Amino acid sequence: MKLIRFGLPGAEKPGVVTAAGMFDVSAFGEDFGERFLETDGLNRLAKWWDANGDKCPRVADGTRLGAPLTRPSKIICIGLNYADHARETGAAIPKEPIVFFKSTSSLVGPNDDLVIPRNSVKTDWEVELAVIIGKKASYVDEKDAMDYVAGYALHNDYSEREFQLERGGQWVKGKSNDTFAPLGPWLVTKDEIADINNVRLWLTVNGKKMQDGNTSNLIFNVPFIVSYLSQFMTLIPGDVISTGTPAGVGLGFNPQIFLKAGDVVELGIDGLGTSKQTAVAWQK
Amino acid sequence: MKLIRFGLPGAEKPGVVTAAGMFDVSAFGEDFGERFLETDGLNRLAKWWDANGDKCPRVADGTRLGAPLTRPSKIICIGLNYADHARETGAAIPKEPIVFFKSTSSLVGPNDDLVIPRNSVKTDWEVELAVIIGKKASYVDEKDAMDYVAGYALHNDYSEREFQLERGGQWVKGKSNDTFAPLGPWLVTKDEIADINNVRLWLTVNGKKMQDGNTSNLIFNVPFIVSYLSQFMTLIPGDVISTGTPAGVGLGFNPQIFLKAGDVVELGIDGLGTSKQTAVAWQK
Repeated sequence: MKLIRFGLPGAEKPGVVTAAGMFDVSAFGEDFGERFLETDGLNRLAKWWDANGDKCPRVADGTRLGAPLTRPSKIICIGLNYADHARETGAAIPKEPIVFFKSTSSLVGPNDDLVIPRNSVKTDWEVELAVIIGKKASYVDEKDAMDYVAGYALHNDYSEREFQLERGGQWVKGKSNDTFAPLGPWLVTKDEIADINNVRLWLTVNGKKMQDGNTSNLIFNVPFIVSYLSQFMTLIPGDVISTGTPAGVGLGFNPQIFLKAGDVVELGIDGLGTSKQTAVAWQK
Repeated sequence: MKLIRFGLPGAEKPGVVTAAGMFDVSAFGEDFGERFLETDGLNRLAKWWDANGDKCPRVADGTRLGAPLTRPSKIICIGLNYADHARETGAAIPKEPIVFFKSTSSLVGPNDDLVIPRNSVKTDWEVELAVIIGKKASYVDEKDAMDYVAGYALHNDYSEREFQLERGGQWVKGKSNDTFAPLGPWLVTKDEIADINNVRLWLTVNGKKMQDGNTSNLIFNVPFIVSYLSQFMTLIPGDVISTGTPAGVGLGFNPQIFLKAGDVVELGIDGLGTSKQTAVAWQK
């Protein structure tokens, strides 16, 4: 199943995507978030859809999409999780996952504008596979970890490199500005992806290919990460785990390349769709 | 006003504390969280209390308290914000605030047990003043910052020093285990504290004084921190900002001292009440 949320920011409605197009499932009566996921919502919705899908109104092409789930309890990111990206930033290959958080207030729809923060000169892109947690997870073994995963989404982990790396200590300052987490277009349930540890992901800026990787090159793969994180914190249904970015970010070029107003960023992951953000300057 | 939430974990009800005791304000019809704060809940509750307080049932002494607000969008912490604490840990005095997040799943009531995580050998304490955001804040000037503050609460920013400092890169891994954020007893509205930048805070372990500081020694004070953070992320009503800890944490002793099952930690801040946690071992 592919889930969407569509409509104006803050007033999104739930929908489903099939080969025939996008459909409004507001009549199901639940938004896609923590409560939906923790009460077996995916299975309940699938059954409901089988019985009622033919009565669901179509969503017009071009309708704005929001993030495919409501604000989660946390967005957890894994740093330097592709060896080629670690090398391009001059960092050592991590011995165990580097973990940081992104403010959930940075979450936006997949095609919303990227707002370059006030005083930013180093706003950068990072195409990433995001894992969506489906079930509360604490001290989970790696062999059981996939039972706690609801599905996947495409994520652009926008990063302000000066805020992240030159303003004292921890990375969260460069990861949390509004619009820095476009998620979607879809939440794709895990049954739809044959092998999540072997999907291609790519990103272009103004049509030029910047990133082109494959999750088979993840240093720490999806079940390992879910198990690992659950040793340090309880994962909650709807939590987003962004698994890291392959080589090709602006920080890694010589000279470095950062985004400016008017730039267009497009990205995609096989099976998870594509998204597109236009950079705009911050305005009061 | 002093707000509490009381009752069993996950089923807390809202209450108010006065000189006469604790009172159940469930009849007001709202829990204390984002929506309550963003819709001027504090003023609406104060008016309601004036009209209805005498009809509110008393809450029995000894009733369990939960955190005084529902799960926030984020718990933001400021690192090394007292010069004496920076010195004891061997760190430099920061030039600008060090910012990290704590998972909101770590939030518990003020007197709940501290669960020492599985495989933890370095669980440590940190008495801190927590600021509670009352109004959405983005790019706020320091002179206006206090308009965005709803009030304050006592917080123990429990920290696993091995997870935080010896397991790769970022601090969040040592800050986010379940029960690592006992908050309260009360959410105290800002009008009740004459000068938040001059209150005493202290902590004992098994009755022995370990920390004894004053917010007048904060390197970055409350309005500065609120303004500063709002440059990097949107602060949302109910967000918790923990402002840092003074000297006297276990990491700073020679030899270092860490918590073991059975230890009793008590802490307090003038005007914000006291809390008490008993350390227990993790169990499956």
